[in-house]
Amino acid sequence: MVYGAIEAGGTKFVCAVGDEEGNIFNKITIPTEDPQKTLSAIYSFFDEYPLTAIGIGSFGPIELNKKKANFGEILNTPKLQWKNFNIYDVFVKRYNLPTFLSTDVNVAALGEFRWGAAKDVDSCLYMTVGTGVGAGFVNEGTILNAWNHPEMGHIHVPRNFNDIFEGSCPYHKDCLEGLASGSALEARYNLKGSEIQEHQREIWELEGQYLAKAIMNYSLVLGPEKVILGGGVMKQTMLYPIIRKELSRLLNDYITIDKMEDYIVAPSLNDEQGIKGALALASER
Amino acid sequence: MVYGAIEAGGTKFVCAVGDEEGNIFNKITIPTEDPQKTLSAIYSFFDEYPLTAIGIGSFGPIELNKKKANFGEILNTPKLQWKNFNIYDVFVKRYNLPTFLSTDVNVAALGEFRWGAAKDVDSCLYMTVGTGVGAGFVNEGTILNAWNHPEMGHIHVPRNFNDIFEGSCPYHKDCLEGLASGSALEARYNLKGSEIQEHQREIWELEGQYLAKAIMNYSLVLGPEKVILGGGVMKQTMLYPIIRKELSRLLNDYITIDKMEDYIVAPSLNDEQGIKGALALASER
Repeated sequence: MVYGAIEAGGTKFVCAVGDEEGNIFNKITIPTEDPQKTLSAIYSFFDEYPLTAIGIGSFGPIELNKKKANFGEILNTPKLQWKNFNIYDVFVKRYNLPTFLSTDVNVAALGEFRWGAAKDVDSCLYMTVGTGVGAGFVNEGTILNAWNHPEMGHIHVPRNFNDIFEGSCPYHKDCLEGLASGSALEARYNLKGSEIQEHQREIWELEGQYLAKAIMNYSLVLGPEKVILGGGVMKQTMLYPIIRKELSRLLNDYITIDKMEDYIVAPSLNDEQGIKGALALASER
Repeated sequence: MVYGAIEAGGTKFVCAVGDEEGNIFNKITIPTEDPQKTLSAIYSFFDEYPLTAIGIGSFGPIELNKKKANFGEILNTPKLQWKNFNIYDVFVKRYNLPTFLSTDVNVAALGEFRWGAAKDVDSCLYMTVGTGVGAGFVNEGTILNAWNHPEMGHIHVPRNFNDIFEGSCPYHKDCLEGLASGSALEARYNLKGSEIQEHQREIWELEGQYLAKAIMNYSLVLGPEKVILGGGVMKQTMLYPIIRKELSRLLNDYITIDKMEDYIVAPSLNDEQGIKGALALASER
């Protein structure tokens, strides 16, 4: 069987065809322009294949509540051409196939759960720290999605004592995303994330502490077996040991985590967790 | 069919027999003494009935991971006689019936979901604010329980600017429970919770603000359709409007909540949400 997978991002769309084992036969990347232009390139790609179903992981926020008439609609995005665009309906109409939609981070969690770092455990949280911060949770193969899809990047965590940065989130100022996203790093230090050097230890210490505080909260609310940290900021791999150490300190043995090195891990799908997650979403039923 | 329900608390056990519609036929309350004495009173009660299954909502932390050999064991409780006591095994051995175990707050969430304030929605968070703080989450009838059961009372939220109380949690000092539980209120003001007067407005404002911060985090992580607030501290009903107002301010329309009065509500099962939840747990399979 051949499945279609779409990872819809704010700067690019990745489209792939593959099978239910996670094998990708073909893949293209399309810049995110206006919907009509972008879709036309996507259709050209998929039209060549006898698809069985389609899975989509989309940037958001999106309406994922099936009780709402606008299920599938992209909501308050700063990408104005995509605001109120229904990314589900267009593919249902074009291909008339079973079509499954979730958020980009939810499907990345599913991808790592099915074929990646969490393939041998029963639940995982996938967190991405890039321009923004987001996370998705999978328990026993099911993506957590209730009335609203999670918006975990916007939780509040305590500020460090001497941190006076006001925060960069347009909605909440100093929520996690406002304090610790790639955008926040740039605003905080007036440097591109890629310009922050590895030896600027105090910058990464603060970043790791905020991420650890968030992971503590997620861990206490969700109880995942594994936490996978991806996204551009996490390419700075020195963050992993900082986060593990701080999380141990914060939890203070309140919940048992056998080995912190196995609890906080990097993705293992080589930046294909999103597109493979969309493939998993398409093929799992 | 007749089902057995047990609400196991640190100061008392409530035991009931009832049916799959939530009707309770008989109910007793037994003080929590040593396990042997307490169990003997429970057995005397249940032995009279032709039970079909048993549901238990227990104080915790408890081991709820079925992959662990000690599934059913009460873990780090300050009630030393119950520490490492397996509250699941004893009932399986005694009655040899299908037996279902979860935490006290998880079953309270299930009770309100099946027969209470959340009976017309698809998901709910039940939060109790009493001596401690805890919460459980039910989505489409299923209790959230992954590798560890939730320990939501111990998340960290930002302190209010001028709050210098160090926090009363023995594990984390100023986690939510350490700042806003009934015990924290007593330690903070050197007053029994019941002695704090309704007109001591600044006390309740601070309390409501902390609870709103926690509910914001839970809402962003879990996306429930409704949040039900119970427990002794919430008998101070002026907290509800304080919490609703502060939560609206914090969320700043980032997620859509149609009516805050319908989102943040009181339990509707008259302090029977725990025992009825245990009944729901016993009877839903």
